[in-house]
Amino acid sequence: MFTLPQKEFRMTTACPGSDSIQDLPSNKGDGLERECSRKPDQKLLKFYGVGDPAAELSSSSPYLSSRGSVIKWFWDSAEEGYRTYHMDEYDEDKNPSGIINLGTSENKLCFDLLSRRLSQSDMLQVEPALLQYPDWRGHLFLREEVARFLSFYCRSPAPLKPENVVVLNGCASLFSALATVLCEAGEAFLIPAPYYGAITQHVYLYGNVRLVCVYLDSEGVKVKGLILINPQNPLGDIYSPGELQEYLEFAKRHELHVMVDEVYMLSVFEESAGYRSVLSLERLPDPQRTHVMWATSKDFGMSGLRFGTLYTENRAVATAVASLCRYHGLSGLVQYQMAQLLRDHDWINQVYLPENHARLKAAHTYVSEDLRALGIPFVSRGAGFFIWVDLRKYLPEATFEEEVLLWRRFLENKVLLSFGKAFECKEPGWFRLVFSDKTHRLHLGMQRVRQVLEGQPQLADGAPPHQIQEPQGPHR
Amino acid sequence: MFTLPQKEFRMTTACPGSDSIQDLPSNKGDGLERECSRKPDQKLLKFYGVGDPAAELSSSSPYLSSRGSVIKWFWDSAEEGYRTYHMDEYDEDKNPSGIINLGTSENKLCFDLLSRRLSQSDMLQVEPALLQYPDWRGHLFLREEVARFLSFYCRSPAPLKPENVVVLNGCASLFSALATVLCEAGEAFLIPAPYYGAITQHVYLYGNVRLVCVYLDSEGVKVKGLILINPQNPLGDIYSPGELQEYLEFAKRHELHVMVDEVYMLSVFEESAGYRSVLSLERLPDPQRTHVMWATSKDFGMSGLRFGTLYTENRAVATAVASLCRYHGLSGLVQYQMAQLLRDHDWINQVYLPENHARLKAAHTYVSEDLRALGIPFVSRGAGFFIWVDLRKYLPEATFEEEVLLWRRFLENKVLLSFGKAFECKEPGWFRLVFSDKTHRLHLGMQRVRQVLEGQPQLADGAPPHQIQEPQGPHR
Repeated sequence: MFTLPQKEFRMTTACPGSDSIQDLPSNKGDGLERECSRKPDQKLLKFYGVGDPAAELSSSSPYLSSRGSVIKWFWDSAEEGYRTYHMDEYDEDKNPSGIINLGTSENKLCFDLLSRRLSQSDMLQVEPALLQYPDWRGHLFLREEVARFLSFYCRSPAPLKPENVVVLNGCASLFSALATVLCEAGEAFLIPAPYYGAITQHVYLYGNVRLVCVYLDSEGVKVKGLILINPQNPLGDIYSPGELQEYLEFAKRHELHVMVDEVYMLSVFEESAGYRSVLSLERLPDPQRTHVMWATSKDFGMSGLRFGTLYTENRAVATAVASLCRYHGLSGLVQYQMAQLLRDHDWINQVYLPENHARLKAAHTYVSEDLRALGIPFVSRGAGFFIWVDLRKYLPEATFEEEVLLWRRFLENKVLLSFGKAFECKEPGWFRLVFSDKTHRLHLGMQRVRQVLEGQPQLADGAPPHQIQEPQGPHR
Repeated sequence: MFTLPQKEFRMTTACPGSDSIQDLPSNKGDGLERECSRKPDQKLLKFYGVGDPAAELSSSSPYLSSRGSVIKWFWDSAEEGYRTYHMDEYDEDKNPSGIINLGTSENKLCFDLLSRRLSQSDMLQVEPALLQYPDWRGHLFLREEVARFLSFYCRSPAPLKPENVVVLNGCASLFSALATVLCEAGEAFLIPAPYYGAITQHVYLYGNVRLVCVYLDSEGVKVKGLILINPQNPLGDIYSPGELQEYLEFAKRHELHVMVDEVYMLSVFEESAGYRSVLSLERLPDPQRTHVMWATSKDFGMSGLRFGTLYTENRAVATAVASLCRYHGLSGLVQYQMAQLLRDHDWINQVYLPENHARLKAAHTYVSEDLRALGIPFVSRGAGFFIWVDLRKYLPEATFEEEVLLWRRFLENKVLLSFGKAFECKEPGWFRLVFSDKTHRLHLGMQRVRQVLEGQPQLADGAPPHQIQEPQGPHR
């Protein structure tokens, strides 16, 4: 049975490249914490399980500061898979033997709908005010539209207010800004693991803030907040209102900020999943420390549009984030387009969402049936773009080295997945497989996955798949 | 005679809110350096010459980290004038007694041309690739266009290369990213003063990097680079190729990075000014440490579009900046629009630039003649959007307190200017007046300036205006 039980959470700190690393109490026999007290760069490199530490570090540039070298390292190594992919992208006509990307969490199912909507004549509006320095919180017309949009789609008990909205160029930026204004350098946020690994960079690169993968204590590092991703990434889990309330009460007791990342809130394609936005709760236990994040990257399949928003009642936090928005601003023309899009409830409700959900559901059914046929256990809850796949039985040894080797074999067979280590998963052998893609690419991608797995020794059979598909525990 | 002589540069460090402030050797009798060794917040507040320190600080929020409070402070206080302005903006029809903004350096003369060009049908292109995660350096089609554009307009001796281009959402972000990847926290860049004061925030808020207003030594703080703004802001000065070369050679001797900010490069409206981009030099003394910045904010009058670019031959710096571009990304749709705009040399050469330069020149002539009629000395060199105005004789005492009082009287009389202190000017009494606005607003703005000055006691007459209009020295 797959669960993410609270008591089993290992406490590990994602502490890339810092020279002020805390020596955490460690669960011996597990490599991660001990690496934290070694040379940070070794840790850094092993943390992501890619590249050769010595080679990587010797290439550090004399022109960069030490933090600049760490920042560059993230680019050089964390994107290894993506660079390989971009040099050999699959194209049905031009490069049919190219790499299929089932690694990036993007929704490629609705570009037809989006292109049509965004090409309509109401989208190109060029007024002087849009070309001038904006209110760095976002133009008022857009913040008003965001407040109305979130009130409706999050089902808030009372109308949300434009003055609590700060608009910026994506949630990566928002994590960066919140980490900086809420924490001193070296402090930490809690985050339930496995989690979307890029957040490690988002809070660290500018903010020098760490993540602690647990919600318990954290000796040696001061914890300032808790990050909840709902629906969860990579699990696709949904927090029930009760669980949400429990987390919020826990945070309140400890005076922790809670950042609730709801970027997949409209990508719940199983009605029965019963998703509830944190903004729909009758009463927030600690509204001054509850900060909600949303973006169009996932729910409107537009990662390249760079639009994200913060909703917080805390004026100081909103203002401090706004002050950093000078570095996270988005074009006035795009602000106009986003306001047009978000106000078009007819199109969203009658065209986009029903079609998007139907397509997501079909793609999800396709891949999950394929996995069942292969006898591969997986986790998936009817939300998000991914399935969390248990390939533990395909590892000759239960190590993260073997996990990367398997990941590389997938890549060599021209299909890109994400490995569990990148999500701080505690067990080697889990992979995130993105299914929100056109059938012909999914078909080919799954075929290539199957080829690799059939060339692999199957060791012991793991837990039976059906139990694994129905996880119990706090993350339902 | 107005000069910016090298030997007269005071060495002051802009050290907002830091607790690791260096006690610099100070020129007693001048308040600034001594304030640096006092409470940083006092310094911070006085530095910008606005607000009541005690009142401001008592409003610091318990929810923010100490750096978060400083970040918020910048928003709360530095924008005092702009907030007042935004609550009472001048509008010819709706609010004719509202505030005229001669403070923000924006070009408001060509919105008609820009709106027409940006509304053409080639501008709205919605392809899937533009909606997906981009190459964080910028889409290749845009970086190619930027390289071609800069090759042509900077007159580079050889074609510039797309791989040396990194595109992001404005030069503020670029300063932030460069400061972070080139410096450790607490290190500094040199900058000739007076300078565009916002750079203090850009390098400090995320990067924790300071500015030292001098190019000499800097005891107690490690200097890693030199920032040159060419054409200069607020002086409108242009560096001759010889001066440029001298700065670059100096930087090379001391292994300093040089960031050359050329955001006004196409806003040189006097042909005779003889502007030369640093990229036009036959040979850069230290190409690996020379980083060029350009944006459309000024030269295309689109501060709200958020498009800036880095050009550097240094691969490590380009990559490290690209790694931070996750937080400074701009929409794929805007990237497409910018590529369309930059490749349209016919429109740029035959329509936009001639008309823009003619309008800038006319507006400049109008304001400078008005200033001459008032007997007010000023500096202006035929580039940029502003005139550096010498109002020293209108201060009852030569203090920055009096400077702010005069600035407030302008604001009370509904005209917003920028005071010299915000540019780290060493002498109280200088103001930056932006002339790139429509005649009727300029006319009314200048009338209101005159009303304030005629209500002020004129003390001794300063240096004769004509000499001041023709400054000599290193900043020609």
